Amino acid sequence: MELERIATLSRPADTRIVLVVADGLGGLPLQPGGRTALEAARTPTLDALAREGVCGLHQAVAAGVTPGSGPAHLGLFGYDPLRYEVGRGVLSALGIDFDLEDDDIAARGNFCTLDGDGRVANRRAGRLDSDTGRRLCERLRDIDVEGVEVFVEPVKEYRLLLVLRGDGLSPQVTDTDPQRTGAPPRPPEAASDEAVRTADVVAEVLDQAHELLADEDAADMILLRGFSRRPTWPLLPEIYDVDAAAVATYPMYRGVASLVGMEVLETGSSLADEVDTVASSWNDHDFFFVHFKPTDSAGEDGDGARKVELIEALDAELPRLLALSPDVVVVTGDHSTPCRMKSHSWHPVPVVLWSQTCRPDGVEAFGERTCLAGGLGPRLPAAELMPLAFAHAGRLRKFGA
Amino acid sequence: MELERIATLSRPADTRIVLVVADGLGGLPLQPGGRTALEAARTPTLDALAREGVCGLHQAVAAGVTPGSGPAHLGLFGYDPLRYEVGRGVLSALGIDFDLEDDDIAARGNFCTLDGDGRVANRRAGRLDSDTGRRLCERLRDIDVEGVEVFVEPVKEYRLLLVLRGDGLSPQVTDTDPQRTGAPPRPPEAASDEAVRTADVVAEVLDQAHELLADEDAADMILLRGFSRRPTWPLLPEIYDVDAAAVATYPMYRGVASLVGMEVLETGSSLADEVDTVASSWNDHDFFFVHFKPTDSAGEDGDGARKVELIEALDAELPRLLALSPDVVVVTGDHSTPCRMKSHSWHPVPVVLWSQTCRPDGVEAFGERTCLAGGLGPRLPAAELMPLAFAHAGRLRKFGA
Repeated sequence: MELERIATLSRPADTRIVLVVADGLGGLPLQPGGRTALEAARTPTLDALAREGVCGLHQAVAAGVTPGSGPAHLGLFGYDPLRYEVGRGVLSALGIDFDLEDDDIAARGNFCTLDGDGRVANRRAGRLDSDTGRRLCERLRDIDVEGVEVFVEPVKEYRLLLVLRGDGLSPQVTDTDPQRTGAPPRPPEAASDEAVRTADVVAEVLDQAHELLADEDAADMILLRGFSRRPTWPLLPEIYDVDAAAVATYPMYRGVASLVGMEVLETGSSLADEVDTVASSWNDHDFFFVHFKPTDSAGEDGDGARKVELIEALDAELPRLLALSPDVVVVTGDHSTPCRMKSHSWHPVPVVLWSQTCRPDGVEAFGERTCLAGGLGPRLPAAELMPLAFAHAGRLRKFGA
Repeated sequence: MELERIATLSRPADTRIVLVVADGLGGLPLQPGGRTALEAARTPTLDALAREGVCGLHQAVAAGVTPGSGPAHLGLFGYDPLRYEVGRGVLSALGIDFDLEDDDIAARGNFCTLDGDGRVANRRAGRLDSDTGRRLCERLRDIDVEGVEVFVEPVKEYRLLLVLRGDGLSPQVTDTDPQRTGAPPRPPEAASDEAVRTADVVAEVLDQAHELLADEDAADMILLRGFSRRPTWPLLPEIYDVDAAAVATYPMYRGVASLVGMEVLETGSSLADEVDTVASSWNDHDFFFVHFKPTDSAGEDGDGARKVELIEALDAELPRLLALSPDVVVVTGDHSTPCRMKSHSWHPVPVVLWSQTCRPDGVEAFGERTCLAGGLGPRLPAAELMPLAFAHAGRLRKFGA
């Protein structure tokens, strides 16, 4: 259902929803024929939620599609990721907590090296280290273009963020990254009339960057792609008449939450800190997104034992959240990160939704296989979780008479 | 997900996918309260694939819609049959292995009889036999239109194929079949300006056909419908960066495979021949579609015992395919053909997908009922199988950052 139609059904209520996202929660058997990390973990609280609530597995984007963190969270927040796309420049800005203003133009950048003929020799400048990347970004801060404020921010290693701030700019500029070695960087081109000036600005930025890097050994140039602006979407407060808050320790997740209209709360670095933050803000908001990052990192590291421990640690913190008496609790992941694959994957993600109005589905424990038999089905589009949560919170009225 | 977007995610890999389609595989219980042919068959290899892989049932077109062979296979090849339609003329050409060129205009034709006032008396000329149909087609080969090559090919019984080859032709011509008796054949009309000449050519063809049939008792005229041209779609090589091959004993399936960009391999008449063909071409392609027709014919004949035998014969050939060490194996049908109905049906079709990256779903045997509990769910859109297969083959990159 389109967000604009959901908005016509939503109504306020004095109810609270908590959405807990354990990043990369889903997995594959740690050993052939064995159990997944989630199946192996002792999770009495999740199992109790599963018994009383409704379970299933969700699919963030589409069959076979492995989601990045941005699209995966947009799906969980109710936005079909195929329809609501965020540019790579904006995602880069979110990832480093850059305070992107509405009209800013952001692009993702790479330091690169060029050969004697000006063709790209190494698209990532030999994967230069973060210290060097930081130093080179400092250097590029001398770029000076009339009428435009230029920000050059280090991201990690060879990656950087370029932001242009000024009147009359447009994101309709083509990538300069040729996406292969042996070809020269592409000139920035205006993809629409309104972007002609912006393309000129980008060309000027690149000329100056090339000069400023002239005496550097590590890199000769920057390659830019994903010129974009903060999207203008229906926001959660408009759609659901809700005052939503985000509690996350990593910038990327705070950033995506802010894109959909959540207020980002200050918090500490542990899950216990995050739960404290929810508890202390309990009366100020009626929707809380709580993000738990380490499960994904354990999956990326291929560390099954650690992933099991982390899921158990999450389970152990849940009673404090439940003690706040939320009306609806959803616990899930944004995508699967099987330890065996050491990467995000396309496999559907277990989800449990608990409220007083759940119809029990016979699922007795929270895991990949048990959830297959759950009432939400084996492949619920992730974007359907939000309307379900708000329905269970008594916040969606009847459709039609 | 649209094919154009999947194309942006695909990446090459040295992995191989085999898609085995047992035509009309799905069924209903052979006896009330009993087992389906697939459930009754001894299928140790399919059951092993089901145990290690992920199962479900797919739906080729839409709920309640019984697919023809063309749309059913397009669905399996990843093309939503509601969006990617093939004209009836083109399907007729594919069904008789007619070598349709890109700009050819094809129409499906019926021989018919007319009454004294020129109105259709029998739309199928009393279902005249194939020998007569063939003879009448020979006769119509005297049709001579300037600047256009005209092909008249027998299909079966009263059915024929008309193909027009020449410059500046268009498929935008209306059907001449009035779809009922008692009405005169409709004049061919141009549905767009560019089709005016083609409509004139068709009118001339029909005038000459009428004259050539004047002294025939069996038929007086031909009725034409489904003027169409080979579709211009994204092809599998473009979408998935794959070199796909088709191994099928029937023209229709070779034809549909060629429409989506598969190379059609020469093969013999048995399943063993087909497996030999795959084995001998194993290093030349990285996707193999293997079609097994007899299961559908047994269903159409209502011969349950035969369908059981054929499924067991298929199961017995699978180890030779598996010995080639494909990275992904999919075994399914294109649609159900329940023996009890003696026809195609809309019932979802069992499917098993096997690879090293499958998440086991607890399904222990391959059958209509067991697959209901599988990880692919009970009503997977058939067109989602291809992206899943390519994901499991490590050939789709992450969506978004």
